[in-house]
Amino acid sequence: MTLPEMRQSPFETLERRGHITIPPDGQEAVGILEQARLSVDPELRRAVESLPGSMRRVARYHFGWEHADGTPATGNPGKAIRPALVLAAVEALGGREPAAVRAAAAVELVHNFTLLHDDVMDRDTTRRHRATAWTVFGVPDAILAGDALQALAQRLLAEDPHPAAAAASARLAGCVVELCAGQHTDTEMEGRRPDEVTLDEVLSMAEAKTGALLGCACALGALYAGAGEEDVEALDAFGRETGLAFQLIDDVIGIWGDPSRTGKPAGADLRVRKKSLPVVAALASGTPEADELAELYRAPYQEGELERTALVVERAGGRDWAQVQAADRMARAMHELSRAVPDPEAAGGLLALAEFVTRRST
Amino acid sequence: MTLPEMRQSPFETLERRGHITIPPDGQEAVGILEQARLSVDPELRRAVESLPGSMRRVARYHFGWEHADGTPATGNPGKAIRPALVLAAVEALGGREPAAVRAAAAVELVHNFTLLHDDVMDRDTTRRHRATAWTVFGVPDAILAGDALQALAQRLLAEDPHPAAAAASARLAGCVVELCAGQHTDTEMEGRRPDEVTLDEVLSMAEAKTGALLGCACALGALYAGAGEEDVEALDAFGRETGLAFQLIDDVIGIWGDPSRTGKPAGADLRVRKKSLPVVAALASGTPEADELAELYRAPYQEGELERTALVVERAGGRDWAQVQAADRMARAMHELSRAVPDPEAAGGLLALAEFVTRRST
Repeated sequence: MTLPEMRQSPFETLERRGHITIPPDGQEAVGILEQARLSVDPELRRAVESLPGSMRRVARYHFGWEHADGTPATGNPGKAIRPALVLAAVEALGGREPAAVRAAAAVELVHNFTLLHDDVMDRDTTRRHRATAWTVFGVPDAILAGDALQALAQRLLAEDPHPAAAAASARLAGCVVELCAGQHTDTEMEGRRPDEVTLDEVLSMAEAKTGALLGCACALGALYAGAGEEDVEALDAFGRETGLAFQLIDDVIGIWGDPSRTGKPAGADLRVRKKSLPVVAALASGTPEADELAELYRAPYQEGELERTALVVERAGGRDWAQVQAADRMARAMHELSRAVPDPEAAGGLLALAEFVTRRST
Repeated sequence: MTLPEMRQSPFETLERRGHITIPPDGQEAVGILEQARLSVDPELRRAVESLPGSMRRVARYHFGWEHADGTPATGNPGKAIRPALVLAAVEALGGREPAAVRAAAAVELVHNFTLLHDDVMDRDTTRRHRATAWTVFGVPDAILAGDALQALAQRLLAEDPHPAAAAASARLAGCVVELCAGQHTDTEMEGRRPDEVTLDEVLSMAEAKTGALLGCACALGALYAGAGEEDVEALDAFGRETGLAFQLIDDVIGIWGDPSRTGKPAGADLRVRKKSLPVVAALASGTPEADELAELYRAPYQEGELERTALVVERAGGRDWAQVQAADRMARAMHELSRAVPDPEAAGGLLALAEFVTRRST
């Protein structure tokens, strides 16, 4: 596989291999996402409005509906990828989308509960180009708002008369446990030396932190379509693999991304010595560059070393590995999808979303 | 009502008024609690053991099953009051206790999730005579373990084939929101001046923080017994009022309790300027002592002023008010209980638990 090919999105790579036909552009996905946002928002707003004052304020702010002072905002509530996956999965398996709107809102509530808590734990100060909730309302209120959003998610499912609601609730709760485990590993690995982190560990962490909820979203859609266990698991795997592909690409962007397109400074992940997937792959490569990288990572970032570090990761094979892995994960995702949804037309929505998720950050 | 009478437990006061007959001692309740612990612990352990390593360790430690180093401990996992209320409520309404064991475990998981998070927010360093989880494992892991326990609680109910499980799940999720609101108000009131806090606010906060989950436990028992809405609400009210009575008495103990019995230093709540129920009642009394108390509370605690402060709260009527309120709340609790469970023998277990909850701290 030549390098120029690797610089393409995994979808393009797959297309060149003749596996799939990609949609002409991201327009289909954009339409699906907009429609999902429109379908889910009323349910989401109803849930948030049912909160007592204090947590309602934090939640409204976090979702971008209000400024910190309580005045209305027309912000960016996120791309609605997870609710869109729920609804697209229902449709792909022949179910009715409107019946799954509550489940889609529940997944979005869980996603946002974990964002609120992760920002507290990671001390992150910006999210979606705004100050994070804990910096505005304090740590206790951000924790409480997160706790309440998890509860709201489960209440939505508990009050849903759909026959799949209980199975969806159990699955979503199990996913929360996995998300927490992923976040724990992420935080815990930060305290380790770079050479104490294995590639398997980082991959497992990325699957738990990013793949699990995308998989759960697809699985919930399958459940709401009345699909059998095998199809539910196939769609879960589809979402997980897509999530992993996204994370691999996101990590490539974190090193080599164009700042004008990513909105982040160049090499952001290298500056903070993040043990991202390409970096750990480079460290595990057994090349002379691996040793050089380990040495660079042992010391704090120094002005001007950015290009050298990025080059060392690339020469050690970290960039190629991540791109090949991403393509491989997307191939697995497509395989799982085609198992559960053999009709390409029925699979179109999920396919477009997977393509969007992995393409948008390249 | 004379003062000596007020020094008795609300139950004794009620008995003297001829309302109820109290059990001869707390032995019946102790037996019920021990039995509840035995019934619920296997379910609780199974749930905790299903967690990934990191959170399992935090949870095992928090429940007192393990020391910080992971060696087994025979600690104090708490009194199992909430699970016991679930099981006693099922029995009181003619249901089968074993069918409600998962619901009882779910309530205990929610209780412990809130303890883990409250300790983080309040920066409390000891709980059940041990170092709190966040001081041992760090704030992120304590937050994550709490998040996971909430998820486990909901998963237990989602996987419970009992016909009441969905209603119980919705009710428990609603209760979590209320617990969060109570914790928010509690934290937020700490930052206010004493004269900026109203009695209604402190009562509402106590109901949300302490009453809501006791009420929810009883309501879940009623649901699992197949009770109608009216009886479910009556049992919820019974638990809430019992919780408020407990809090009122606990606050009295926090000022006038015997250190040798409470394990806390005398006047602990006054030292930290806690806006407890008797204090806020005293501040709102319109007496000259109210002004003196407000002045004392504006300054940090000074050695030797403890007796004076306690006396001022008492002279302003704070102690009497709290005792009368506690007796009143217990009377309401009894009234609600007798509405749903008119047969005194059937109500015996719940009655014994309510008596235990309010007596144990006097």
